[in-house]
Amino acid sequence: MSPDNDPSSVHRRLRGKISICGKAPIKTISDLATLYTPGVAKPCLEIAKDRRLVYELTMKGNTVAIVTDGTRVLGLGDIGPEAALPVMEGKALIMQQFAGIDAFPICLNEKDPDRIVEIVKAIAPGFGAINLEDISTPKVFHIEKRLTDELDIPVFHDDQHGTAIVTLAGLYNALKVVGKTPAGVKVGIVGAGSAGYAISKLLHAAGFSDIVVFDSKGAISDSRSDLDQYKRTLAGFNRSSYGGPLAGFKGADIIISASMPGALSHETIRAMNKPNIVFALSNPTPEISQDEAKSLNIDIFGTGRSDYPNQINNSLCFPGFLRALLDLRVRKITDGMKIAAAKGIAGAVKKPSKDKIVPDAFDKNVVKRIREEVEKAAAIGS
Amino acid sequence: MSPDNDPSSVHRRLRGKISICGKAPIKTISDLATLYTPGVAKPCLEIAKDRRLVYELTMKGNTVAIVTDGTRVLGLGDIGPEAALPVMEGKALIMQQFAGIDAFPICLNEKDPDRIVEIVKAIAPGFGAINLEDISTPKVFHIEKRLTDELDIPVFHDDQHGTAIVTLAGLYNALKVVGKTPAGVKVGIVGAGSAGYAISKLLHAAGFSDIVVFDSKGAISDSRSDLDQYKRTLAGFNRSSYGGPLAGFKGADIIISASMPGALSHETIRAMNKPNIVFALSNPTPEISQDEAKSLNIDIFGTGRSDYPNQINNSLCFPGFLRALLDLRVRKITDGMKIAAAKGIAGAVKKPSKDKIVPDAFDKNVVKRIREEVEKAAAIGS
Repeated sequence: MSPDNDPSSVHRRLRGKISICGKAPIKTISDLATLYTPGVAKPCLEIAKDRRLVYELTMKGNTVAIVTDGTRVLGLGDIGPEAALPVMEGKALIMQQFAGIDAFPICLNEKDPDRIVEIVKAIAPGFGAINLEDISTPKVFHIEKRLTDELDIPVFHDDQHGTAIVTLAGLYNALKVVGKTPAGVKVGIVGAGSAGYAISKLLHAAGFSDIVVFDSKGAISDSRSDLDQYKRTLAGFNRSSYGGPLAGFKGADIIISASMPGALSHETIRAMNKPNIVFALSNPTPEISQDEAKSLNIDIFGTGRSDYPNQINNSLCFPGFLRALLDLRVRKITDGMKIAAAKGIAGAVKKPSKDKIVPDAFDKNVVKRIREEVEKAAAIGS
Repeated sequence: MSPDNDPSSVHRRLRGKISICGKAPIKTISDLATLYTPGVAKPCLEIAKDRRLVYELTMKGNTVAIVTDGTRVLGLGDIGPEAALPVMEGKALIMQQFAGIDAFPICLNEKDPDRIVEIVKAIAPGFGAINLEDISTPKVFHIEKRLTDELDIPVFHDDQHGTAIVTLAGLYNALKVVGKTPAGVKVGIVGAGSAGYAISKLLHAAGFSDIVVFDSKGAISDSRSDLDQYKRTLAGFNRSSYGGPLAGFKGADIIISASMPGALSHETIRAMNKPNIVFALSNPTPEISQDEAKSLNIDIFGTGRSDYPNQINNSLCFPGFLRALLDLRVRKITDGMKIAAAKGIAGAVKKPSKDKIVPDAFDKNVVKRIREEVEKAAAIGS
């Protein structure tokens, strides 16, 4: 890799992938008096009188805090808040370039979930939405729930919601291609971390009625006594009451793995119903390689990789979804809005096919489509 | 005022005076792979291994958090974090335009000083410096002290340090004009809030050896039993042991008022030594008007107003001082650095005169001068 595109060289040269820009020049005493003291007292007093005017008179309405504690960064684990910063900057850069959002990284030197909640609540006045990022499970579920309950701005957890929305979008088009419906398919989900948990819940909300979720101990079912509150929710989706290991799971139409390389055996794939749909979302090394998928004759195969077809990538979702949340001044994200966003993404593919179930990462239509669909959902209170 | 320059109209049109800009375009899959996943893992791992590299590989080294709880905004009092946001945005805009600093407003919905300390410590990993702003006294002194002791990045409190540095800069040139020295003058300081407290301390550190500070109850002296720990420090500077009211204070060479209109009587001015120097810093209405200053025959008169000569304005200091702190990776601000900054500001005026003791607000030389002087001071450990 040449220094020109070696990621460390590029980061070293840039020293930060985002910067602060001024939206108005300060060139004269009169500029200073209008944008700073004494003139600035006027908008301040307007907001002091009616707090809602903060959306009209400041940056709040277009501003997102990207919050992490650095405990689960990419696949690298707990590398700390400083080492997480390049990812958060990257996220902010994408939000800016894809959707014109002003997002700012907040990397926390604090790991206690309730203290993280208090900190995010304290900094919330200046932000229009919160994006939780790369915080370890299960504490992030608790953080997300408390913030959603206690804040008056939307709280988006990309590792959950983003992945789930893009997965659902891919499934909508994949089902179209193979001629099946959400209510008529049996789904296996491998992994019960942020992604697996959120995918399972969103698929259930979207009418997938037979879902079996697997963690490292096998199927999550009511017969297990080791489940935390989050996994107990997932056990409730298990209509077939399957309680065995993944290796014995038969007749699935769809398998989605959000786990790690090695989690999906060839036997499990061979035991599926045909035509079958497999998403192997471990990144950068999927649970099943593209070559294996071919030799196993998988009908529709998706991964997180940009060099394979059907890239199930969060960046298809978060810029447009956050754009919609800000523009519509959503207070709380609903399942209806997430399903709408998935429909928006799916709808951006004109003619879905085996190798084209999600739009291109640079399809400018996607942000607009998500925005439109979420607006419709919000309008009917969905 | 036309809607074009009415501050509320301008703020309503802008909806935020700063925005996030990208420093690198994301136009191809390869850009995405270098600036985001999977390439971003490389700089992340470098920082995880050696945390100091966060300065080389991220935005941290050029980034300032402007932190407020909205309890003492301008002269408006406790108007809350949302209503404080226009001021913090203005500050960020000035830092960007005057010194190329990436500053971001953090408006806190939290008033407890120790909790504010914990929050600022938690968000510190992504910032190269902290700028405390418009937090009420005396709690802000406690917050500043704890953060300075407990963080490894500099903590600048503009209402204290900024005002004190610009005041000292103005005094350096004023003394030159009247032919006096710091050690040879008697100074009266009216007001013991953020500004008065910090001005008194900095003047003392800079060799002004006879300072009497006044609060609403009269001179702050050892004979008083109602002093908190901050005012007790100030009592120690009172060499003349004057313990009476401001009205009976005689023979001052310099009076600096950081109080409110009405705090300075004509009798007090008339009782000063000649030639005299008076700074009336209450804003927007100074304790003494320009007309009164003329009729009282004050030799050198400064205020916070931009439409009078000799504007003692924080914006002369904070862009250049923060620029220096970031560039030099200062860990803790010292009195030596503040005195150096004052010398830098004073030095930007080529020929100081009665009506020109501080540089113009738009003098591009100021940031550079401060940077140079602070570097010299830091180099000798001053």
